[in-house]
Amino acid sequence: MTQPAILSTGSYAPPRRLTNEELATMVDTSDEWIHSHTGIRARHIAADHEAASDLGTIAASRALESAGIAPEEVDMVLVATSTPDYLSYPATACIIQDNLSCTRAAAMDITAACTGFVYGLETAACYIKAGRARYVLVIGTEVNSRILNWNDRNTCVLFGDAAGAVLVGPSPDGKSRVIDSVLRSLGNDALALLRPKGGSRHPLTFTPEEEKDFYVQMNGKKVYLFAVSAMGKIIEKLLRRNGLTIDDIAYIVPHQANVRIIQSCSQRLGIPMEKFYLNLEEYANTSAASIPLALDEMNRKRLLSRGDRILTVGFGAGLTYGGNLITW
Amino acid sequence: MTQPAILSTGSYAPPRRLTNEELATMVDTSDEWIHSHTGIRARHIAADHEAASDLGTIAASRALESAGIAPEEVDMVLVATSTPDYLSYPATACIIQDNLSCTRAAAMDITAACTGFVYGLETAACYIKAGRARYVLVIGTEVNSRILNWNDRNTCVLFGDAAGAVLVGPSPDGKSRVIDSVLRSLGNDALALLRPKGGSRHPLTFTPEEEKDFYVQMNGKKVYLFAVSAMGKIIEKLLRRNGLTIDDIAYIVPHQANVRIIQSCSQRLGIPMEKFYLNLEEYANTSAASIPLALDEMNRKRLLSRGDRILTVGFGAGLTYGGNLITW
Ligand SMILES: CC(C)(COP(=O)(O)OP(=O)(O)OC[C@H]1O[C@@H](n2cnc3c(N)ncnc32)[C@H](O)[C@@H]1OP(=O)(O)O)[C@@H](O)C(=O)NCCC(=O)NCCS
Ligand SMILES: CC(C)(COP(=O)(O)OP(=O)(O)OC[C@H]1O[C@@H](n2cnc3c(N)ncnc32)[C@H](O)[C@@H]1OP(=O)(O)O)[C@@H](O)C(=O)NCCC(=O)NCCS
Repeated sequence: MTQPAILSTGSYAPPRRLTNEELATMVDTSDEWIHSHTGIRARHIAADHEAASDLGTIAASRALESAGIAPEEVDMVLVATSTPDYLSYPATACIIQDNLSCTRAAAMDITAACTGFVYGLETAACYIKAGRARYVLVIGTEVNSRILNWNDRNTCVLFGDAAGAVLVGPSPDGKSRVIDSVLRSLGNDALALLRPKGGSRHPLTFTPEEEKDFYVQMNGKKVYLFAVSAMGKIIEKLLRRNGLTIDDIAYIVPHQANVRIIQSCSQRLGIPMEKFYLNLEEYANTSAASIPLALDEMNRKRLLSRGDRILTVGFGAGLTYGGNLITW
Repeated sequence: MTQPAILSTGSYAPPRRLTNEELATMVDTSDEWIHSHTGIRARHIAADHEAASDLGTIAASRALESAGIAPEEVDMVLVATSTPDYLSYPATACIIQDNLSCTRAAAMDITAACTGFVYGLETAACYIKAGRARYVLVIGTEVNSRILNWNDRNTCVLFGDAAGAVLVGPSPDGKSRVIDSVLRSLGNDALALLRPKGGSRHPLTFTPEEEKDFYVQMNGKKVYLFAVSAMGKIIEKLLRRNGLTIDDIAYIVPHQANVRIIQSCSQRLGIPMEKFYLNLEEYANTSAASIPLALDEMNRKRLLSRGDRILTVGFGAGLTYGGNLITW
C-alpha cells in the first residue's frame, strides 16, 4: 500500500489586517476583552473582490511550486470550506482546479466546518492508500468575514480570513506519512454553531429583517465545553491507539479558535502549552484554513524536521471533531 | 485490501407529485414541451417542513435496515447534496448521523453537484480499501424545489426532490464490489450552472430585487453539450481501462437529467437505449439523489443480480463528471 505523506505546504492571508482596536470602533468591544477571552489581537480580512477560490488558489499554487509538482500531475483538488464562492454549486474546488490548470484532476468540496481540513487530509490519504490517486491538493480556505454579522460582538470578533494548502502524495522515504486519523461527529448539538437561514431547512424570504439569520450564530459556552472535551478525546485516542506518549510528539497543531480552549485542554491532559503551536493572536479563527495555515507557517519557520511526529486536532460546527497523526 | 461493495440500498421520494399539467398552470409551459424536450412527466416535491436531512434520513434508514447493520457499526455518514439543511454549517451529514444514532460515525458533506453521489461512492470505497472504515453510508439527498426560481421555466421544470442511499461495506463474497471510478472536473465552465449570489463571491445585500440571483441559473445548451460528451467519455474510459465491452454491462445507471442527453449518448456510442435505466419521467432531475434513487428502484424491482456489472455516470454543475464501475 502506498504510504501518503504531506509533501509541501502553502498559505495565503489577505494583507488587510483588522486589529482589536479598530474593531472596537465598529462594535461594542475592546482589545482587553477580546485578548483576555480569546487570545486574539488581529485578523486578516479579504478584499471585496476576493472569494474563497482566490485565497485557495494562491495557497495551493505555493504548495505545488514548493513540491515541484506540475498541475497536470494532480489527481484531486479537495477543498474544505464553509464559505464557498457559490452556494450549492459550482464547487470552489472546480474553480481552483481551473485556476491552477489541474486538467486531469477530480474536484470536490468538503463540509465539516472547522474540522474540514482534518477530514480532507484523511480523505486524501485514503485515496492514495487505495491506489486511486497519487497527488491530492488539500486546501482549507475561508472568507469568514462574509458570513459574519458585524453587529454581533459574540461572533464577529472571533473569526478571520485565510487559506492554507498541503500537497499529499507518496511518501518519498517511507518514513514521512499520515499515520492515523480519528474523525467524529456529534449531530445532536448541530445547532450550537450555524447559519440559521438560507438552506433547505429555513429558506430565505428576502425581507431585510431576516438578514441577521443568514449569518453565523453561536452558543459560545456550549461550543467552548465541547471543544475542550473534543480536543482531549482526540489527542488521547490518537496517542493510545498508536502506542505513543506526548513525549513522542514534537507539536500539536490545534484548530486556532481560542487560546483558552487550548489552555484548558493543556491543563486537563497535563501537556505543556509549548507543545501547542499557536498563531491565533494574528489570524483569529480561520475555520478550515487554520490548521494548514499553521502548518505552512511552521514549515517556513523551519520548526518541523522530517521524522518529527505531529498531531492535528480540529473541532467545529456540526459538531464535528477529529485529528491526524502525522510523521513529517 | 478489503474490497468494498454496495451491500444495500434505500430511497425516499416525498409523496407530493407535481405533474407537467399542474406546472403549466404556474408558469408558461406545457406537458408537450417538457416531455418532448426532456422526457419528464412529473416530479416529487418535499413538504414545507422537510429539509434535505429528513429525506436522507429515511433513505439511509431503509438501506441500513435492508442490510441488517446496526447504526453503531457505521463508520462514516457521507452526504452528497447541493441543498443542505443549513448554509456553511452544520453539515447535513451531522444531522443524519444524529437522527440515525450512528454514534461512532464521522460525518461530512460533499459538494460535486449532480456528480456528488459518484464522488461519494468512490470516496467510501477508498476509505474501506485503505482500511480506515468498514461501513459507510453514502446518501444523495436534494430538496431542489427550494433553490429553484419558480418563475424561470428554463430551470424549474427540470428538477425534483428525493433521496437515495447505499450502504458500502466489505464485499460479502469477494465478487460484488466497486471496481473502478473516474472522477473529473471542468472548472472552466463553472458558471454554466450555478446559484450566482449568496456565497463568498457575490454576497447578498438583502434587497428583494436580488432574490432571483439566489436561485439556480443555467446555460442549458452548454450544459447539454457538456453532458453528452462527458457521459461518452466516462463510459468509454471505464470500459476500456477495465478490458470490457458494453456487452459485459447489464445496465448503465445515468444521472437522470434529460432523456435527450441519454439518447444522444446512446446514438453516439451505439449503445441501445435498453441498457440505460431511466426513471426521470417520474422524478425529473433529483441532482445527487438521482443515481442512488435509481439503484434502489432497480434493486426493489429485482433487476439486479449479484455478479451483474453496472456502470453509473454522473455529470453536473462544477462542471463535474464521473462514473463508477460496479459488480453488484
Ligand atoms: C465566545 C466566548 C469567547 C465567550 O467567552 P466567555 O468567557 O464564555 O464569556 P463570558 O461568559 O465571560 O462573558 C459573556 C459576556 O461578555 C459579553 N461579550 C461577548 N462578546 C464580547 C465582546 N466581543 N466584547 C465585549 N464583551 C463581549 C457578552 O455580551 C456577555 O455579557 P453579559 O454577561 O453582560 O451578557 C467563549 O464562549 C468561547 O470561546 N466559545 C467558543 C467559541 C469558538 O471558539 N467557536 C468556534 C469553534 S470552531
Ligand atoms: C434546457 C433544455 C431542455 C432546453 O432544450 P432545448 O432543446 O435546448 O431548447 P430549444 O432551444 O429547443 O428551445 C428553447 C426555447 O424553449 C423555451 N423554453 C425553455 N423552457 C421552456 C419550458 N419549460 N416550456 C416552454 N418553453 C420553454 C425557451 O424560452 C426558448 O424559447 P425561445 O426560442 O422563444 O427563446 C436543454 O438545453 C437541456 O436539457 N440542457 C441541459 C439541462 C440539464 O440537464 N441540466 C442539469 C444537468 S445536471
